[in-house]
Amino acid sequence: MTNSELLIHGARLPDGQQANLLIRRGRIEAAGPDLEAGPDAERINATGCLVMPGLVDAHAHIDKTLWGMPWRPHEAGPTLIDRIDNERRVMNELQLSAEKQSARLLRHMVARGTTHVRTHIDVGLDMKLSYLHGVQAMYEKHRDYIDLEIVAFPQTGVMLRPGTLDLLDQAVLDGAQVIGGLDPIGVDNDPAGQLNAIFAIAGRRGCGIDIHLHDRGETGAMTIEMIAERTKALGLAGRVAISHAFCLGTLEPARLEQMIALLLDNDIAIMTHGPVGGIPFPPVRLLAARGVRLFTGSDGVRDCWSPLNTGDMLERAYLIAYLNGFRDDAGLELALHMATYGGAQLMGARGYGLSVGSVADLVIVPAETAAEAVAMHPRPRYVLKRGRIVARDGCSLLPPID
Amino acid sequence: MTNSELLIHGARLPDGQQANLLIRRGRIEAAGPDLEAGPDAERINATGCLVMPGLVDAHAHIDKTLWGMPWRPHEAGPTLIDRIDNERRVMNELQLSAEKQSARLLRHMVARGTTHVRTHIDVGLDMKLSYLHGVQAMYEKHRDYIDLEIVAFPQTGVMLRPGTLDLLDQAVLDGAQVIGGLDPIGVDNDPAGQLNAIFAIAGRRGCGIDIHLHDRGETGAMTIEMIAERTKALGLAGRVAISHAFCLGTLEPARLEQMIALLLDNDIAIMTHGPVGGIPFPPVRLLAARGVRLFTGSDGVRDCWSPLNTGDMLERAYLIAYLNGFRDDAGLELALHMATYGGAQLMGARGYGLSVGSVADLVIVPAETAAEAVAMHPRPRYVLKRGRIVARDGCSLLPPID
Repeated sequence: MTNSELLIHGARLPDGQQANLLIRRGRIEAAGPDLEAGPDAERINATGCLVMPGLVDAHAHIDKTLWGMPWRPHEAGPTLIDRIDNERRVMNELQLSAEKQSARLLRHMVARGTTHVRTHIDVGLDMKLSYLHGVQAMYEKHRDYIDLEIVAFPQTGVMLRPGTLDLLDQAVLDGAQVIGGLDPIGVDNDPAGQLNAIFAIAGRRGCGIDIHLHDRGETGAMTIEMIAERTKALGLAGRVAISHAFCLGTLEPARLEQMIALLLDNDIAIMTHGPVGGIPFPPVRLLAARGVRLFTGSDGVRDCWSPLNTGDMLERAYLIAYLNGFRDDAGLELALHMATYGGAQLMGARGYGLSVGSVADLVIVPAETAAEAVAMHPRPRYVLKRGRIVARDGCSLLPPID
Repeated sequence: MTNSELLIHGARLPDGQQANLLIRRGRIEAAGPDLEAGPDAERINATGCLVMPGLVDAHAHIDKTLWGMPWRPHEAGPTLIDRIDNERRVMNELQLSAEKQSARLLRHMVARGTTHVRTHIDVGLDMKLSYLHGVQAMYEKHRDYIDLEIVAFPQTGVMLRPGTLDLLDQAVLDGAQVIGGLDPIGVDNDPAGQLNAIFAIAGRRGCGIDIHLHDRGETGAMTIEMIAERTKALGLAGRVAISHAFCLGTLEPARLEQMIALLLDNDIAIMTHGPVGGIPFPPVRLLAARGVRLFTGSDGVRDCWSPLNTGDMLERAYLIAYLNGFRDDAGLELALHMATYGGAQLMGARGYGLSVGSVADLVIVPAETAAEAVAMHPRPRYVLKRGRIVARDGCSLLPPID
């Protein structure tokens, strides 16, 4: 479902060029200073605005957001296990619909310029496959508004809770494109067990892998070694991502270099959302310079984990810049790259970008340069998905939820 | 200049009460569930919104912002001295009007809900008193829109540049309400010299003191001791603030306790804006629990120092919460307190707050609780200054700049 013809005029592109963009059949058909469209074409005046490719939220948890619910003060204890236990209790109490909740959050994400989402979805003994099926039902109604990729995510552990593995395998059979994991040492105390099992599913089903790794220091580093080893053994280079990877923020330089070599050898991508409260995070400028693929995401938005993520990927890029002290344009642009091309590459988004022929997944923001867009992270004037306007002035134009 | 009568109906107050607020002659005249106004009263529908007291940006640098100018990539080196030197070069090159630049930034600040600003203004051998007089000329035209307090700030050093002290003294005579300082050790290498001189001006002229202290570790701690000593000697308890105070973020617990005792003994307030890039900052939750007065501000917005501050004080409270990992309501409320009551107390803002009789300096935001207002930091629906609507839906209603 796309508009037949749309002309964006007076826009600035991230390379500084001023251009009109002609959108036809959902793609950028032409770009140039004097381009014109037919009399029936829809027109967007983008004077003073920057056109960017759509924002990519490549680490979300849209299945378990409390978006649209009454404000709920955060009450979990400080450890990972505290938070897992608290979430189980709250979610069992609330019995929310993953279909409805994910639809609510999606509207907000689209309004803030996100056109692609990789979401982890909890799969475990409590909810079994119900969150997966709920989000899939949501997505059936929202395919025109967003590209969605699903990770089957064992939030409560894998080896720790027998039966979870079968559910993960079934989740992939049911359509999850990626298999997840969670702190094979810190949560499961069985790194070989969890990783062998997850990689076996990936090998058998041909899906990608995206592992939450909060374990710090040498515990995290050893886990990266084990992930790299299995990536090589199964020929999964380019299909594996490690999310958070806090450990990369604390290793000694020589040990960090070993990690970087493993990431490069096996083309493993790294996700950081710029964690709160001084939690260490990967040194993104160094990793980018070495060629490690980087991406970012909202993480959990308004859920039992934290009230501090907002589902705004321009703000996310800003937070990454802020936490890293990126004041220069190169740093601001790196943060934006993580929230655009980095995530798009991870998701295998075909035709992503601003070239002629690209899919017209676009965000139009009041800014002069990409660096300014990050620094000010304004609300998008327009968001386009496959050439159709899906948000305007920070408000989603998606149809109301049933 | 105030509206004669205005009724805010359907609003939620931070204490959870739902109420109408009747504003007359610039003050909250009454609050209650069934309150009504006369037929000529202006009406604001605040259903679904929270009414908060106006945001207080108590550490700004509105004199040297590049707001409204073309995007300028940050190009200074990493040290404090690099940045001072770079700024001198750029500002000498640009020769901006402090009157115009401060007016531009002020519009944005008002649009984002700020009703009170304490701004540092550079006083030094380059610009002499021209920035001060420029901002004062701006303020003559903007008294109805904001409360402004001025700190005469020696950005390029005091003892280091003979002649600066006389300019600072003259700035106070010309109307600056507060005298500033800057790293008496790190910049001037003469802590007794700078502090004796600054405190002498405060003693002589009866003004407050607000000292930028970036020096870390023991260098910063020794400076705090020297500030406390002079505060006591001159009877200036309650009139002195230390801005940034990075050192408080790195001291050993026992040394930190000594600092806290000095701050409490001399009623010295501490400002942090939550610095970028892992720079240490004061442990605000601990300091607040001990009773140390805390406030915050934007610091420099779009100037030669950094592109990362946005002049949005709700977002500032969010950044403080983010950097501190405040997930609970008490933490989020503390961050907001710093951006409201903490700054208002510092500035001696009379009639500040939400009580009946308070000055109607108000921000109305789409949020359910104060904690949610920080977590989501939405654009204000309405901003009121002394009962008059000065911004709506994130846009300033101030008259255009000449």
